[in-house]
Amino acid sequence: MKYTLEEIAKRINGKLSGPPDLVIEGINTPELAGEDEICVVFDENLISAAENGSAGAVVIKDELSVAKPYITVEDPRSVLPTLLKLFLEKRELAGIHSTVITGANCNISNNCYIGPYVVIGDNVKIGEKVNIMAGARIGSNVVVGEETFIGYNVVIEDRSIIGKRVKIQHGAIIGKEGFGFQKRGDTYIRIPHLGNVVIEDDVEIGANSVVDRSTLGSTIIKRGSKIDSLVLVAHNVRIGEDTVIAGQTGIAGSCLIGNRCMFGGQVGVADHIKIGDNTVIFAQSGVAGDVPPNSVISGTPARPHREWLRAQALLLRLPKILRRLGLKDVSDDDQ
Amino acid sequence: MKYTLEEIAKRINGKLSGPPDLVIEGINTPELAGEDEICVVFDENLISAAENGSAGAVVIKDELSVAKPYITVEDPRSVLPTLLKLFLEKRELAGIHSTVITGANCNISNNCYIGPYVVIGDNVKIGEKVNIMAGARIGSNVVVGEETFIGYNVVIEDRSIIGKRVKIQHGAIIGKEGFGFQKRGDTYIRIPHLGNVVIEDDVEIGANSVVDRSTLGSTIIKRGSKIDSLVLVAHNVRIGEDTVIAGQTGIAGSCLIGNRCMFGGQVGVADHIKIGDNTVIFAQSGVAGDVPPNSVISGTPARPHREWLRAQALLLRLPKILRRLGLKDVSDDDQ
Amino acid sequence: MKYTLEEIAKRINGKLSGPPDLVIEGINTPELAGEDEICVVFDENLISAAENGSAGAVVIKDELSVAKPYITVEDPRSVLPTLLKLFLEKRELAGIHSTVITGANCNISNNCYIGPYVVIGDNVKIGEKVNIMAGARIGSNVVVGEETFIGYNVVIEDRSIIGKRVKIQHGAIIGKEGFGFQKRGDTYIRIPHLGNVVIEDDVEIGANSVVDRSTLGSTIIKRGSKIDSLVLVAHNVRIGEDTVIAGQTGIAGSCLIGNRCMFGGQVGVADHIKIGDNTVIFAQSGVAGDVPPNSVISGTPARPHREWLRAQALLLRLPKILRRLGLKDVSDDDQ
Repeated sequence: MKYTLEEIAKRINGKLSGPPDLVIEGINTPELAGEDEICVVFDENLISAAENGSAGAVVIKDELSVAKPYITVEDPRSVLPTLLKLFLEKRELAGIHSTVITGANCNISNNCYIGPYVVIGDNVKIGEKVNIMAGARIGSNVVVGEETFIGYNVVIEDRSIIGKRVKIQHGAIIGKEGFGFQKRGDTYIRIPHLGNVVIEDDVEIGANSVVDRSTLGSTIIKRGSKIDSLVLVAHNVRIGEDTVIAGQTGIAGSCLIGNRCMFGGQVGVADHIKIGDNTVIFAQSGVAGDVPPNSVISGTPARPHREWLRAQALLLRLPKILRRLGLKDVSDDDQ
Repeated sequence: MKYTLEEIAKRINGKLSGPPDLVIEGINTPELAGEDEICVVFDENLISAAENGSAGAVVIKDELSVAKPYITVEDPRSVLPTLLKLFLEKRELAGIHSTVITGANCNISNNCYIGPYVVIGDNVKIGEKVNIMAGARIGSNVVVGEETFIGYNVVIEDRSIIGKRVKIQHGAIIGKEGFGFQKRGDTYIRIPHLGNVVIEDDVEIGANSVVDRSTLGSTIIKRGSKIDSLVLVAHNVRIGEDTVIAGQTGIAGSCLIGNRCMFGGQVGVADHIKIGDNTVIFAQSGVAGDVPPNSVISGTPARPHREWLRAQALLLRLPKILRRLGLKDVSDDDQ
Repeated sequence: MKYTLEEIAKRINGKLSGPPDLVIEGINTPELAGEDEICVVFDENLISAAENGSAGAVVIKDELSVAKPYITVEDPRSVLPTLLKLFLEKRELAGIHSTVITGANCNISNNCYIGPYVVIGDNVKIGEKVNIMAGARIGSNVVVGEETFIGYNVVIEDRSIIGKRVKIQHGAIIGKEGFGFQKRGDTYIRIPHLGNVVIEDDVEIGANSVVDRSTLGSTIIKRGSKIDSLVLVAHNVRIGEDTVIAGQTGIAGSCLIGNRCMFGGQVGVADHIKIGDNTVIFAQSGVAGDVPPNSVISGTPARPHREWLRAQALLLRLPKILRRLGLKDVSDDDQ
């Protein structure tokens, strides 16, 4: 892809200082950008990197300047997605590969891409412009909304309902039966799972993540939520809108997670927990009780973040404090 | 599937109050059940949900009643698996798909289902009524017992021995070589793994979980144990009978885990640890030493659960306690 | 495979005490080894196990002896990889299966093995003696160095560069777009990821692990590093040489990890953290700040290991300490 500097300035509503006809063929970091590439400088400290590097042009903040052709914008960070999209080489995938195996009574839009060795069950509806990569497995009675992306080797189990513009990254598993057993004496009997998974519009599910289907009713991930890789969402969970969950987090059965929450990585949430809207949970926290809206929590068991920080700081200073209290050799006594 | 209320009452040994000929076509939650569906009420608080909803019939505890056709049983929760099974629509899968690739000298029972694009090595024995879903990869010299389920895209490496009625959920990897290296100067040399994995009868392995094969001998998961998704079981580990391990737990090399243990999610166990029978380990614990039978432990490093709870509670109250001891502004001093 | 005891002694530079012509057909543990197998005894405690078992021959430390044919070496542990390799039955895989689908303009060496149902994009270069197992998916513009192993159902995204003698274990995902979004009001816009993943020579990536591609430039894993299963390496991360990372660890975006570090399992590292060379991080630690070289750290937030150990020990003794200070019933007050 090629653009003149003038075209680029227009696309990001920026002010151009430099030759409007300069041709730019890519985007890169200030350090790596070449003469035909543009780079974006987020803060003043990186201006020199851009100047010393080979970049053909630079995007910087209003009121700054650089000894190269440049475009100024109010907030360079905010134009980055637009700029990256300009130079994204999108392979236009098309057609349904001859090796795709489809069950009875499916309804697949003409302009989908379905890659080699994909297997699809019965009664499946696939909307317009859906991309399904090689090796994906889709069960029966599944609905996939338009413009949704289903990565390589993804598994989508029977009765799942997937919205529009959803991204299910490679290897993710949607709709596996929940981890539910009933104890009989010392052994366990499996509880059948008749429910399904509903993933609403604009959701993203990360690579190799697992979303279990519910016992009855639906495991639901609502509009706009973004879930990272290797995350486990157990049966009967409901996750609200625009909630972001970082990698390797696990949410146990029947939790109700609010809207606009943010989970750090490796968080664990015990079963049947309710977490209110706008909650922020720091990485590696273990949530063992309900959380009111607008909370900021951390630690295991999770508590208000400031309280946890204070406790951790105190803990480290304890040896000193105890010495001050006249306990000379605390670390060695009592053992 | 359709049953009369009388048939359902018989199947769950319940007492019917209502029209025996009423036809029920499904099961659902008290809130979601429709007129042709039955629901189960676990406790009195949910009776009103069942009454206000549209459910055609209700299962409740002995001595309770509800203003609808109902069936009473001693313990509603315990009949749930039976009820769910009644309404489980089991796709009867049959036949070996024409795209299945099989090596030399395999012995596959006639009444198995093997889905599209499955690849099987040499000298593999597959028992009766085994289901192998599309895209599974099975190495050479593997044995799979009768009625076992192998999910989509599962990998089972050479020499694995899988028992009867085992469930290996989608994307799980059984028998990958263990993570074993030997240091030579600053670099690492791979230790070859000649062992295998043995999974006994009635075990379940969750989606995208990984069970490594041993260096020599076998990594063993014994009868009836249930392992959730995204769990890592390293080389040379032995897990006892009827042990339950929740999601994202990791068990390092050569651990010996007892019978009837219960692991919460995201537990970590260091290598070469012995954990006695009937041990309960709370979620996110880190087990760094041997654990006697019948222990209840939590925290990192894991210790008796009550001790850990007490320590956590004290930690949170420390600021107050220290103020009482005359240390006025503890959180700011010493920094 | 069969070797005489004399041949085996030569291969491990050992001194033989026993019949040189004795034929050994396998290797096993001291407990499990049969009459035609050899075993290795690491320490004196296991000599009796070897003597009481059926092993045909034993490898032991210099100056020790055993009442069976044996070979002595300076360090029995260090010869284990060599011995195991002698008896490793390496299926010699060869040929490109007729079901492999390859894009335009690929350059695949003649002596590769590519298994059934592998799908490869355009402009892919695959070096000599590469093994690609069934069901792997390789994007476009990918380079794979000689003697590299790509496991079953592995996904390698567009533009990835994989070195020589790399092992990518089953189900791993290399080059998925990073988990990067920009907030606009309450919703999130995806940041396109134009970068790639570079994996240098002799690296190992574990089963079902995920390595994200960078926004711009490359996510890099340098020569000789070994990464276990279910690990998440986020976008723009750089991992140095000969670093070992145990299972279920997560490294957030843009971290710079040094050479020769060792990570325990389930470690979490926050984004943009720098970790110096030779750092040791204990299992389950949470690293929230930069770490100087040669550190040994643990806990969340991670701090010097000895300091953390001391704090944990103090915490457990606090009830006793506070009683000594005259606070009789600390665990119940203030609540």
